Parts: sequence; C-alpha cells; structure tokens
Amino acid sequence: MRAGLDIGGTKIDAVAIDDAGTPVQRLRLATGFGEAEVLANAAAAVTGLQRLARSEFDSIGVGIPGLVDPATGRVRHAVNLGFDDTAFGSGLENLVHAPVAVENDVNAAALGAYHLMALSGPVAYLNLGTGLAAGIVVDGSLWRGARGVSGEIGHIPVDPLGAVCACGQRGCLETVASGGAIARLWPIEHAYPAQALFAAAAGGDPEALRIRALLFSGVAAAVRILVLTVDVESVVIGGGLSHVGAPLLDGVRGVLAGWAGSSTFLASLDLPGRIRLLPDGLSVAAVGAAMLGAPAAVLRP
Amino acid sequence: MRAGLDIGGTKIDAVAIDDAGTPVQRLRLATGFGEAEVLANAAAAVTGLQRLARSEFDSIGVGIPGLVDPATGRVRHAVNLGFDDTAFGSGLENLVHAPVAVENDVNAAALGAYHLMALSGPVAYLNLGTGLAAGIVVDGSLWRGARGVSGEIGHIPVDPLGAVCACGQRGCLETVASGGAIARLWPIEHAYPAQALFAAAAGGDPEALRIRALLFSGVAAAVRILVLTVDVESVVIGGGLSHVGAPLLDGVRGVLAGWAGSSTFLASLDLPGRIRLLPDGLSVAAVGAAMLGAPAAVLRP
Repeated sequence: MRAGLDIGGTKIDAVAIDDAGTPVQRLRLATGFGEAEVLANAAAAVTGLQRLARSEFDSIGVGIPGLVDPATGRVRHAVNLGFDDTAFGSGLENLVHAPVAVENDVNAAALGAYHLMALSGPVAYLNLGTGLAAGIVVDGSLWRGARGVSGEIGHIPVDPLGAVCACGQRGCLETVASGGAIARLWPIEHAYPAQALFAAAAGGDPEALRIRALLFSGVAAAVRILVLTVDVESVVIGGGLSHVGAPLLDGVRGVLAGWAGSSTFLASLDLPGRIRLLPDGLSVAAVGAAMLGAPAAVLRP
Repeated sequence: MRAGLDIGGTKIDAVAIDDAGTPVQRLRLATGFGEAEVLANAAAAVTGLQRLARSEFDSIGVGIPGLVDPATGRVRHAVNLGFDDTAFGSGLENLVHAPVAVENDVNAAALGAYHLMALSGPVAYLNLGTGLAAGIVVDGSLWRGARGVSGEIGHIPVDPLGAVCACGQRGCLETVASGGAIARLWPIEHAYPAQALFAAAAGGDPEALRIRALLFSGVAAAVRILVLTVDVESVVIGGGLSHVGAPLLDGVRGVLAGWAGSSTFLASLDLPGRIRLLPDGLSVAAVGAAMLGAPAAVLRP
C-alpha cells in the first residue's frame, strides 16, 4: 500500500492505494498554515490513513503547490501554505518514518488523471486553477523536462496587446484562461465565481459573454499549443474551473471547431476530439502523488 | 556502415556513417523532379556512396520535406519534389535492396544535430527554412508525439492582428520568422534574401530594421514556447536563415535578454543561454537520416 497527499491551500486530500493502484481509503483534513503546521497535518493524514487501511505504507507521495525539486523534496514559493523554502520531503520523512516523494500538485494530478481515467499515449493535464499550467505524462511517467518547467504554458503570451501578467509579460494565456483571470475581469463576491460568470453569460450579460469568450479561446489556444509542441493524444481539463462542466467543454470545443473550419491544417489535428473534462470526484492529485513511489509496472498498465 | 540521404528541393546530400556514427563519405547530386526521377537519383546516391565507402550498407535513412509516416515510409505533400502521395520507403528499397527508413527532414536534422554537436538532455532543432518547424530529441531519440505533429510550432499564432498564414490561421510564428516571411515582407531578387535584409538593416533602412525585429522576436517566441512546453535544455537554430550567423543569434538573444529584464520568471529560465546556432557545413539531416537505422547504443552515447 502507498499513501498520497494532495496538499491544497485549505485542505489535505489523502488516499491510500493498493498494489494495483486502486484507491482504497480516503480522508481529508485542514491544511493549516506555515511549515510546522502543514508538516504536522500531513503526518496526521498519513497516520489516519494508516489506521483506516490497517497497513504500513511502502511510500508516501505528496503533491504540493509551489516550485518543487522532486530529486530533493525541496519546496519553494508555496505562498498559499505560508512557507518559501522548505525541505518538505525530509521533514515529513522524519515524522512518518517512510520514504516520501514530493511533486508539484499539477504534475501529481496529471499522473493521477492518466491512471484513473485509463488514458494511453502522451497526455497533458491542463489545470485551470488560480493560474494555468499543464502536467505532461509520457509512457505513464511524468515528463519533467530539462529544468522542471515543462508544461508552464500559462506564461506563453498569445496577444501583444493583452493584459500584463503577474510574471511581468503581457498577454499570457493565464491572463485570460484561469480563475485568477476571472477574478480580475469579473470581480464579484461569490463562492463559485466561474459558475456565476457562466450563469450571467447564459442570461445574456454582454460583459460576461465577452469574458467567457476570452476564456474559451484561451483554453483552446492552450490545447493547440500542447498538440503542436508535444503532440499529446489527449488533453484533460481539470482544476477549479473544470467544475463548470459541460458548458466549459462545449465552449472550448466550439472555438476549436470554428478554427478548424478556416484551417484544413488545424482540422487535420482533430483538436475537439482530443480534449476531455476531468470527471468530478476523482482525487487525481492525491492518487498521482501516491503513484510517485510505485514501480513502473503499476504506472504503465 | 549506414547511408543517409537528405533529399532537398534541388540537391540530395548523401553521407555514409560508420558504426560509431561518424560521417566517413559524402556526395551530392541533383534531386530531379517527380517520383520516378527522385527515386532513381536517391538510388544513384546510395550506389555512389557504396562505391566510395567500398562497403554495403546495413540500412538507408532518408530525410525528406513532406508529411512522412515513418512506420510505412509513405510521403505526402512533397510539393517541392513533385509528388503528393508516394510509398517512398518501399520504392527505394526495391531499387537498393536494403532496409530504408524515411523521416521528415526537420526531424532527421534534429537527430543529426543532437549527435554531431554532442548535445545532451532534451533538445529542439528549430528549422528556419521556407517555413518554421522544430524537431525534438529526447534521450537521443526523436520525439514524434501521438500523431506526428510534434514540433509544428510554426503554426502557433502569437498575434491576433498578425498576417494570415498559408495554414488559414492568423499571426502564426511562421508569418514573421521564416524564409517565407522574409520573401513576403522584403521582396527582392537576391540569391540570399535574408543576408540582403540584414545588410539593409545594418545600413539603417527603417523597413529592414522593422522586419528584422519581427524575425528576432518571432524566433525568440519560438524558443520560449519550446522551453515552456517540452522544457528543452537546448534549442539549436538551423535551416537556411541560420546562415546569417552571429547577427541572427545575437539579435534573438537580445530579445530574450530584454524579456528577462522585465520578468524574473523568464529570467529564471535562462533562455539566451539555451540557444545556439547550427555550425555551418554539418550535414545534419543526412547524418540524422543515416542514424534512423542505427541501434540505440549509437544514438545514446
């Protein structure tokens, strides 16, 4: 058995998987804030899972938002968790006495989605959260690239006249196709701002329609980039915005189909047919994190 | 020994490589036009090399401009060679009685550049020819993607107000950063239009300066895209435009350095340090083609 933790800004999603990679136990608890608290809660999640699963774990995997060095388990810029530079992997190992692997949360989710959705071929997991980024899975393993920036497509500019991005560039994909973009362009107090935007657009609000169109074409541009670079077979759309569901998928497919109508080259790529939505309720980041320690046979069924 | 042919629009560049992958013989002859003529000349190149090398070949590799299915050796849309849909691999096998592997010429050049320049890590070969496309090498092998469109970054749009591309989209990288773009934007009768453009720009011509700036930023955008998707360690700039030499490399590095000045994120990627120019005089496509048939040990030294 292996454990995987998805450490989010508010909660830790923890799963235990069996030797076939199937999730068999799950628990959730609050993340807390700051290095000591987050480490203690992560250790409590492992202990709790162990009790539920009545088993020790061969390995623990952690998916965490921040700049992660998988080789050392070091985490930087985890601003939402309240720490900037922490040896998270060895810190947790000291608490739970089992080998710990740490990975960026989007990469962990990519691995989990690949497995739980029984995908094959090269796959990208396109995370539409506060930001926009993709995790890439090739032959069942994460493609991390030369220096760990593979899939950081949110910071590819696609419009010289676009908005200035937090990264300092202008017109990045993230400035139109992310939760942060919606918060900036459609600032309201609502538990689910994207759903509120889509409801307003469905009601005919012209500004909501405009922002929704920007979102659709931004996501479509991300899909086009992933196919024309890595040539992934499938792009799985996940992250907070994916909870909008079919209206998001249909809107992005509509943009891609429109592009195909004016470009036989694009039409030959079948972009609408390559995208799919992450189904609700899958603990992809936690399961993917658990798989970080699994042998190749589990990862490549 | 293995033979590799780079079949260009006007000439066939043919090399023989030894078991260590070192080129030991080279010859060039005219390509001809149309399926029968090109096949006959390709076979003549193999026979000629065989005579020079005083050896039979274990395999023949072919790099060819067009849409290639490496699994079957089928070539489509080879418009410059005068055929549209040809079983080129089996056609050549019938003439030379040795196994033939066929690959897109940019992919073949990527493999050859990786080997001849003794590169390591994931590498992209950015071909600035009539069009713009990249070949990607991972662990010493070509990354072809799910459906053979990996690296087709010339058709990623980066400016909604840009020129209409031959592919039907608007503002593709290829519309500013390719030989075709220079021919359209700076139409003159000259054997080396890019050199003429750079000479005019160096002389202060405002229009030449504007077009050169577009070229620099288009190539820089291509490099940024290759790093933020695949995260290649190096981008080798090759193709006809690369003969401009240092002024091209310096210009692109200048744009990348400028971007880094306004984005600490981009600065952290060290894009200027990741690009290099293909040295003149290397038969990269022919050597890469020859390597298509070589065992992994030769490809991954």
